[in-house]
Amino acid sequence: MIKVGIVGATGYTGVELLRLLLLHPQAETIVVTSNSEQGKRVDEVFPGLRGQCTLTFDNHETEKLSNCDLVFFATPHATAMNYVPALLENDIRVIDLSADFRLKDSAQWQDWYKLEHSCPQLLDSAVYGLPELNRDSIKKARLVANPGCYPTAISLALLPALASGAISASNIIADAKSGVSGAGRSAALGTLHAEVSESFKAYSATGHRHWPEIVQTLKQAADETDVNVTFVPHLVPMNRGILATTYLQPLSDNDWQQMYESFYLNEPFVDVLPSGTHPETRSVRGTNICQLAVHQSSATKPHLIVISVIDNLVKGAAGQAIQNMNLMFGLEESSGLFASGLIP
Amino acid sequence: MIKVGIVGATGYTGVELLRLLLLHPQAETIVVTSNSEQGKRVDEVFPGLRGQCTLTFDNHETEKLSNCDLVFFATPHATAMNYVPALLENDIRVIDLSADFRLKDSAQWQDWYKLEHSCPQLLDSAVYGLPELNRDSIKKARLVANPGCYPTAISLALLPALASGAISASNIIADAKSGVSGAGRSAALGTLHAEVSESFKAYSATGHRHWPEIVQTLKQAADETDVNVTFVPHLVPMNRGILATTYLQPLSDNDWQQMYESFYLNEPFVDVLPSGTHPETRSVRGTNICQLAVHQSSATKPHLIVISVIDNLVKGAAGQAIQNMNLMFGLEESSGLFASGLIP
Amino acid sequence: MIKVGIVGATGYTGVELLRLLLLHPQAETIVVTSNSEQGKRVDEVFPGLRGQCTLTFDNHETEKLSNCDLVFFATPHATAMNYVPALLENDIRVIDLSADFRLKDSAQWQDWYKLEHSCPQLLDSAVYGLPELNRDSIKKARLVANPGCYPTAISLALLPALASGAISASNIIADAKSGVSGAGRSAALGTLHAEVSESFKAYSATGHRHWPEIVQTLKQAADETDVNVTFVPHLVPMNRGILATTYLQPLSDNDWQQMYESFYLNEPFVDVLPSGTHPETRSVRGTNICQLAVHQSSATKPHLIVISVIDNLVKGAAGQAIQNMNLMFGLEESSGLFASGLIP
Amino acid sequence: MIKVGIVGATGYTGVELLRLLLLHPQAETIVVTSNSEQGKRVDEVFPGLRGQCTLTFDNHETEKLSNCDLVFFATPHATAMNYVPALLENDIRVIDLSADFRLKDSAQWQDWYKLEHSCPQLLDSAVYGLPELNRDSIKKARLVANPGCYPTAISLALLPALASGAISASNIIADAKSGVSGAGRSAALGTLHAEVSESFKAYSATGHRHWPEIVQTLKQAADETDVNVTFVPHLVPMNRGILATTYLQPLSDNDWQQMYESFYLNEPFVDVLPSGTHPETRSVRGTNICQLAVHQSSATKPHLIVISVIDNLVKGAAGQAIQNMNLMFGLEESSGLFASGLIP
Repeated sequence: MIKVGIVGATGYTGVELLRLLLLHPQAETIVVTSNSEQGKRVDEVFPGLRGQCTLTFDNHETEKLSNCDLVFFATPHATAMNYVPALLENDIRVIDLSADFRLKDSAQWQDWYKLEHSCPQLLDSAVYGLPELNRDSIKKARLVANPGCYPTAISLALLPALASGAISASNIIADAKSGVSGAGRSAALGTLHAEVSESFKAYSATGHRHWPEIVQTLKQAADETDVNVTFVPHLVPMNRGILATTYLQPLSDNDWQQMYESFYLNEPFVDVLPSGTHPETRSVRGTNICQLAVHQSSATKPHLIVISVIDNLVKGAAGQAIQNMNLMFGLEESSGLFASGLIP
Repeated sequence: MIKVGIVGATGYTGVELLRLLLLHPQAETIVVTSNSEQGKRVDEVFPGLRGQCTLTFDNHETEKLSNCDLVFFATPHATAMNYVPALLENDIRVIDLSADFRLKDSAQWQDWYKLEHSCPQLLDSAVYGLPELNRDSIKKARLVANPGCYPTAISLALLPALASGAISASNIIADAKSGVSGAGRSAALGTLHAEVSESFKAYSATGHRHWPEIVQTLKQAADETDVNVTFVPHLVPMNRGILATTYLQPLSDNDWQQMYESFYLNEPFVDVLPSGTHPETRSVRGTNICQLAVHQSSATKPHLIVISVIDNLVKGAAGQAIQNMNLMFGLEESSGLFASGLIP
Repeated sequence: MIKVGIVGATGYTGVELLRLLLLHPQAETIVVTSNSEQGKRVDEVFPGLRGQCTLTFDNHETEKLSNCDLVFFATPHATAMNYVPALLENDIRVIDLSADFRLKDSAQWQDWYKLEHSCPQLLDSAVYGLPELNRDSIKKARLVANPGCYPTAISLALLPALASGAISASNIIADAKSGVSGAGRSAALGTLHAEVSESFKAYSATGHRHWPEIVQTLKQAADETDVNVTFVPHLVPMNRGILATTYLQPLSDNDWQQMYESFYLNEPFVDVLPSGTHPETRSVRGTNICQLAVHQSSATKPHLIVISVIDNLVKGAAGQAIQNMNLMFGLEESSGLFASGLIP
Repeated sequence: MIKVGIVGATGYTGVELLRLLLLHPQAETIVVTSNSEQGKRVDEVFPGLRGQCTLTFDNHETEKLSNCDLVFFATPHATAMNYVPALLENDIRVIDLSADFRLKDSAQWQDWYKLEHSCPQLLDSAVYGLPELNRDSIKKARLVANPGCYPTAISLALLPALASGAISASNIIADAKSGVSGAGRSAALGTLHAEVSESFKAYSATGHRHWPEIVQTLKQAADETDVNVTFVPHLVPMNRGILATTYLQPLSDNDWQQMYESFYLNEPFVDVLPSGTHPETRSVRGTNICQLAVHQSSATKPHLIVISVIDNLVKGAAGQAIQNMNLMFGLEESSGLFASGLIP
């Protein structure tokens, strides 16, 4: 059994990671931390885990982390970077679900996160944990930067088209819509039920922190061609799920459906839907799957439209982290990730 | 008092029209029809109207329509076209909230609605009831084709940019999101609570009936320049509201904020929000207002992003119909349309 | 025009009060206060009021309150009691929507609110603002304690039965369900969308602050008979609305439907639904109306079941406050309170 | 592997049963039927099952049912009774999730379901599948009548109190609230999103079909003491979950918390929460667990309040059916039922 720890297990991604790890046949969670709930039993804070988990929250400084083979960080940004160097030195592998190690360029990180990075020297060796792009590097990684939820949904929608070179990389639009759990589990006016439900809005239209991450990933996929992408996130009055609608200008005629199916043929967690169908976020609720559909629009000069859905807490966070763990430890890639979508 | 009738008053647009007309100081609803609820009191079907309305549903054939100055049709498509010629001959004006008279080209109508139009000779004289585009013609119209909900939200987002000629008309994307009341008040699996809530999806990505209406309107706004627009509608798990996110390629630098504010300066129902803000559908819930925001994206070659919100049942249907009535009868344009948004 | 001020206009009840007052033909809001938003325009914080309100938030200490004929407090408890004595001395009337003046017994207030009351001498002259119980006293009041949302819904369900003496006052159950706006507009983990939606729970089952208020009101209605009531509140994943299901043991056979209809015959805001129907909260959304239905259960010894619905922000707060204002100032009781339910 | 069939697998309980059986280590679903979707692949109708299920819907008459060890019926009432006798004769065991075999008295069944029962001779031998009440009989049963969702939630809340004899069996109130999936997956006006969301209502206050089932079960639990129970169901704007708030009159002082904990000590799927807490439906979403809390009200003569939550589709239907299957086939009772609650 792989011994794992979760730093920051009271947020939605942290507790989702714990829920999934409790079902994993080859991993055992031996420590969970929370500075705010330290000393409380996990199942007191999350009664849905009664009977499944007898752990008590430690604080982030706990010695128990040193007994782990792998530590997950499910903390806000600028936390993991303070703990990771010491863990790596102790030969403990790390998967960071926050943004600390996603961008390769520390100056860019500083621009978007408005503070200095405390260990820029690790950015180079950190592997961006999108298995569909970086599977081989992930297998050998000591430190994996788990992708953001929007970048996961958008990248998976675009990888095949970008790799093909058959679309205009300089005119990409990604209109993305997320459920509210993506905003985290902390008291905030903007995510109250009475502020969110029965309403819909865009936010950060002129710049969201996931934009540089998306650009970096798409550039890699497009083999360093310059990429011009406009990304607008929206808030959906639901808890889980992201849907990304991406619009591309084709440079040539192609059987896009066939291209996408081939590209993802062997991927365990990307599912290209039959032609003519539309993915729904509920179909992947609670699962690590990304479902995709490929359309051409009704315009005179049609756009290629690729629509992707993921569960932002699973393939967009905790599930993808476990997929990465499986790769890093030589397990079956889908180990512990067997759920089908919970509907309704 | 203008004597009005509503044909098809049991759908969401019909009952919303009734609710608004009951508050109108210069209109009196003298007849409401429903073939399915004929003989029942309106406030038995809609207890929210108890104390406000003592009418009983007649069927569509009722003689009482001939006593009206104006008849609204809030019926599914292919109903109004069977009644309108006789009403017009009797000098009764008509506002049709359905799609029957929106398209100028009867062949196109036939293509999208899959049946023959029964009075194509009226299509020319029918005025498309978007006051911000056709105010003067509406004032003189005998027959107004009230715009669809998506076309209203999208057209209002795009009119100033198209009129300016400063954007590429051949590369327009309209990613639109609607609450579920737009799908109507009839029993259907796809709009059940358990199918819609906690989920999000696109639909009709390769062709929605509102697409030709949007193209026709944008062409008029762009002075018959060819217009290439890709339109994808999405279903939001909420009841009321549409948000359209439109993406445009600028041909030149402009103070878009200033351009939009000037364009809509005197419009009573279009409100350009301050720079840097994002509209929310709840702000216009129950009102006839369209709120707009203008952004430029974070891409290297930024898109112009215009985001609009309306209440699909009000500015997208019943409220705009009353606005048109006010214009047709020489009343103050905003008469009876004074509500502010109901939040939360 | 009555000049009014609103202290604490950034909560849900405060802004709802403002929204309703903006439509009131005989009242003018001249000052709104908020310590947190002081200096901001109201329509910047609430864009749904753009075009309707040009006021800017003052802080609670503003001199402008002294120009008012009436000041509303829509503050958390323990605020109004610090301002009310001075206002009354200046001959300014007060309607307090908080709990400060609802209980007659200051010791009891202290028990439930865990702090000392700063002006217990006012509790006697404060009138409990439930017009259906205290209309005449309200007309003459200088200080009205506006009822809580649960007490309003529950009292209106029970008044006729208690007044009749035909039910057992010692065995009353009130199972009440409220939308989340009742918990207020402040950042709190427990009212996040992701905590509330797609879930349902009871809370405060062993004691809620509205319980002593309910008991006090029911005792008055039952002519000081002792009253034994069990009250359990629940949280519904919706924004607005309260439904109370009350269970009573009949002491004799009665035509309860007829009794309830007679009791409320002349009440402008209480509507007894026809026999056999069930009220829905949406029917009264945005309105000042309480709809009631009277049933007998299928048990062998049937309970009398009275079900009431109100909009917690209107009849349960802001609308009832305006109803009280109308009474205090000799206006038509329903002035400004004309809306019908916004559905869907 | 137990070979199972599901008759009626397109409703919410049917597809939930399929989802759970796909995870079951000792059962294999070999046939699923649907008269409406016959010939379609299951994962075409339910894309959330892509990659998990390659079955195609047969119609109810399929021969394949004769190859099953066990057939589940997830059909509307009055269907199973037409198929069950033949299956039993062929030595195939049956678990019926519908109401056909729940009531022992065929005349009563006829009264509530308004048609004649086609095989009343089976009612005696059919075992009511509430394991907490009838575990031993279930183990030996050939035909199990799986309990209704409301009766499960309410019975589990009341069994310990009724068994104790320490409460008044003649004055029981069960105020129950259900998510909308309980109403089934068929097109109906009343369960549209726009009719249900942002609203709350009671229904069938004077008599719901689950009432006689509740009475029958409580009588058994109370050892045939007469039982008088008032039951009012309510519709919650959410998809999954039932919460029952039950009110009891104690006949004596007791440590109710202790009594409940002892009673359910060895039950794998009933979890008595710590004193002072309140269960939430989301904690049991997707699980077979019933969580309970025991309170005493703040009334002068306090009621005992027992609050229970279940997932109506799992412990209230499909999960309990699998629990019964496990018992009937000598498997571990919790086999295949390991999920913890999916939050948020």
